[in-house]
Order: sequence, then C-alpha cells, then structure tokens
Amino acid sequence: MTKETYQLLEKYMLSCMGDSAHDKEHIYRVLYSALEIAQEEQDVDYDVLICACLLHDVGRREQFDNPSLCHAQVGAEKAYRFLMEQGFEESFAARVRHCILAHRYRNNNIPETIEAKILFDADKLDVTGAIGIARTLFYKGRVSEPLYNVDSQGRVQDGTEDTEPSFFQEYKYKLENIYSHFYTKRGAEMAQARRQAAADYYENLLQEVRLIYEKGGRELAERAIDGQLM
Amino acid sequence: MTKETYQLLEKYMLSCMGDSAHDKEHIYRVLYSALEIAQEEQDVDYDVLICACLLHDVGRREQFDNPSLCHAQVGAEKAYRFLMEQGFEESFAARVRHCILAHRYRNNNIPETIEAKILFDADKLDVTGAIGIARTLFYKGRVSEPLYNVDSQGRVQDGTEDTEPSFFQEYKYKLENIYSHFYTKRGAEMAQARRQAAADYYENLLQEVRLIYEKGGRELAERAIDGQLM
Repeated sequence: MTKETYQLLEKYMLSCMGDSAHDKEHIYRVLYSALEIAQEEQDVDYDVLICACLLHDVGRREQFDNPSLCHAQVGAEKAYRFLMEQGFEESFAARVRHCILAHRYRNNNIPETIEAKILFDADKLDVTGAIGIARTLFYKGRVSEPLYNVDSQGRVQDGTEDTEPSFFQEYKYKLENIYSHFYTKRGAEMAQARRQAAADYYENLLQEVRLIYEKGGRELAERAIDGQLM
Repeated sequence: MTKETYQLLEKYMLSCMGDSAHDKEHIYRVLYSALEIAQEEQDVDYDVLICACLLHDVGRREQFDNPSLCHAQVGAEKAYRFLMEQGFEESFAARVRHCILAHRYRNNNIPETIEAKILFDADKLDVTGAIGIARTLFYKGRVSEPLYNVDSQGRVQDGTEDTEPSFFQEYKYKLENIYSHFYTKRGAEMAQARRQAAADYYENLLQEVRLIYEKGGRELAERAIDGQLM
C-alpha cells in the first residue's frame, strides 16, 4: 500500500469517527496488533488487512444513534461503497467487506479469510487486559452506567448475579471470558499475556469497594441512624 | 440523626444528581469512608458529618454546566439554603456549609472543623487506588478525552510531558501524587492501602499500549507503507 492510499483511508476513517478520541486510538491499536499477528501467518494480503483494520468501525456512529443496527453490517457496506467510489478493484473491496462484516464476535458472520481472522483477533485483543478495562470504563462513563450494583442488604454485587447493567457485570459476563477462541496463535498468546492485569484490577476494585460498604455501612446502621438500616 | 432526617437529606441529594449512577455511588462511598475515619477521631458531630457527606456534591451539576463555577461554593450555599428551608438550626446549617465549602482540595478554603477534615479526606480517598482509576476513566469517557497521547515519532507518551489532556496525564499529575497530605491518620492509612493497585494498573496499561505501538508501528513503517513512517 502506498502512503497516499493509506492516508486516503485514514482520512475517511477519521471523518467517520467524529470527536471520539478514544475510538481513533482503538483503530490504531487494532491495526498495529493485526500487523504483529500477521507476521506469524502465511499468505496475508497486507493491503486488504490494513484497509479492513482502518475501516472496521466506520459504522459505529450509526449503531450508536440506532442500537438496532449492527455496526459490522453497516460498516461493511459503507466501506465497500467508499472503496468502489474511490476506484479500488471490486474483488479488493469485497474482501475488505468480508473482514469488516465478520469482525464482530456477537454476530453470525464467521471470518473465512486469513485477513478476516486477524482483524477479528486484533479487535478482540482490545477487550483484553488493562486496555479492555479502560475501554469498558470509558464506555460505562459515557452511557452513565454504574460501576456496581448494591443489593437490598447493602452488599456490593460482584457482577455474577446482577440484573442491572454495571461494570462488574460486564467484567464477569464478557471481559473475564474473552481469552479463549482466538483464531490465530499469536493473538491467543498476546491475550494470555494481558490476562492477569485485568483480573488483578477487577479483584482490587471489588475488594476496595466491598470494604468501604461493609465497614461504613455497618457504622451507619449501628450508630448514626438509631440502630436501623436504611 | 433519625431515619426520617437521613431520608430527607438523601432524597434531596438524589434530586440534585439526575441520572448519574456513578455520582450517587460516590456519595455513599464518601459517607461510608467518613464514618470509618470518624471512629478514630474525637468529638465528631455525626449529624453534621453525615449531612455534609450526603450533600457535598449538590453543586456538581452547576459546575458541569458552567465550568467557571466551583461546585464546593455552589453546593455549600445550596445545602445551607435547603437546610434553613427545612427548619434545621442555623448553627447546624452553617457547620455543614463549612464542610462542603472546604472539601475541594483545589480551592483556598481550608477545613477547620473535624467534620470538615473527615469529609475532605473521605472525598480524596475516592481518587485513590482502583476506585480512583475507575472514576477517572469514567470521566474521561464522558468528556471524550483520550487515554494517552502519541508524539510525532509515534511513541506513546507516559503522561509526564503531555501538553494535551489524557488519562495518563491525569494519572501523573493528580492520581499518582494524592497519597500525602491527609488530615486524618485513618484516611492516610486507607489511602496507602490502595496505592499499589493504582500504580500497578497504570504500569500495566502503559506497557500494553507501548508494546502495541512499538511492534505494530515498526511493522507498518517497514513493510506495508513503502518503508515510510506516516
């Protein structure tokens, strides 16, 4: 890929991102991780891979505005149309479209090409480790969801049985279980290397918060509010 | 404090918070931590302390809407007026007002009473450890600031020399240096107990991100883009 082509794709990607600084960072991390994974794979078309990485989230804004839309489907079509308009080969545009359509791990479009498998793993890697924690907390802040839920006895829930959304629930149902089912060997290795950082952070946060509620909540109940729990 | 009074104050606090679930959590953590700190202090007026903890951030929304306002000043006056309207003693309302006015560590109002010192420490505690990390990431997500900045050579900055806002900058300039200057012995101990969790998270995140940019950025420069850096 020439520098000019890269810049054309990058500019289009940035135009789709608006002012979400951390969404841009995510794109570059996925691109860089994908290139690291690709080094250990055979017959990778780097032009398809780089293009798919840069454009994989161009449908995010549409999904944010209308959550019934799937950003992988919207983005795949947007990227395909953009590439065709810019005069890329149809076969190239179609291979990029497949990568983007199949990068989302909740939908039913399975990655079939090596480039699609690498993008899938690189994107999933960004949900592992300390970076996965940071991105999840960013998102929870943006949509004003709580860190944790508290039950009727004033106990902080650890996420496993929460019925309402929270950071702890997201950790237990998604972040904690994301370390298996990578398509590439290198992707799986990179994920494992980060696993402990995420687990440590969750445990530290849970312990800090539970300690506060247990000690202070007991104090409030016993001493300040006429011996009654609120 | 009677249960009815507590519920009156809690209801007013919640009415000032809107739908910010994590702001409400913060209030309860500050209240509980304050009660834990108070156990090791003498002559604490628990009614003043509990009231000041519950109402300490009632001016937050005004500061969010107009950043030139100080939420401690706005909140102190709002709380005083509310307490007077509800028929509390003027001396009680004034002591609560002092606590709220002096709880913000960036302004020049120094905590003078034991209740004000405890509130100051309990509020500051919520910026320490894993919880301080979580709250900062929540906030950065809400205002769309990046995790980190990248210099013109593609190197991830660690926060010490960043000229633009980022999570790493906030860590280096605020979170890392918050463990001294507590007014109470117990507050200082609680902060120290959490210190390593925050430091570990920052180091893990910095290491993860730098590794991605170094390896992938080199790969992109050497191989995919005609040997040129973007």
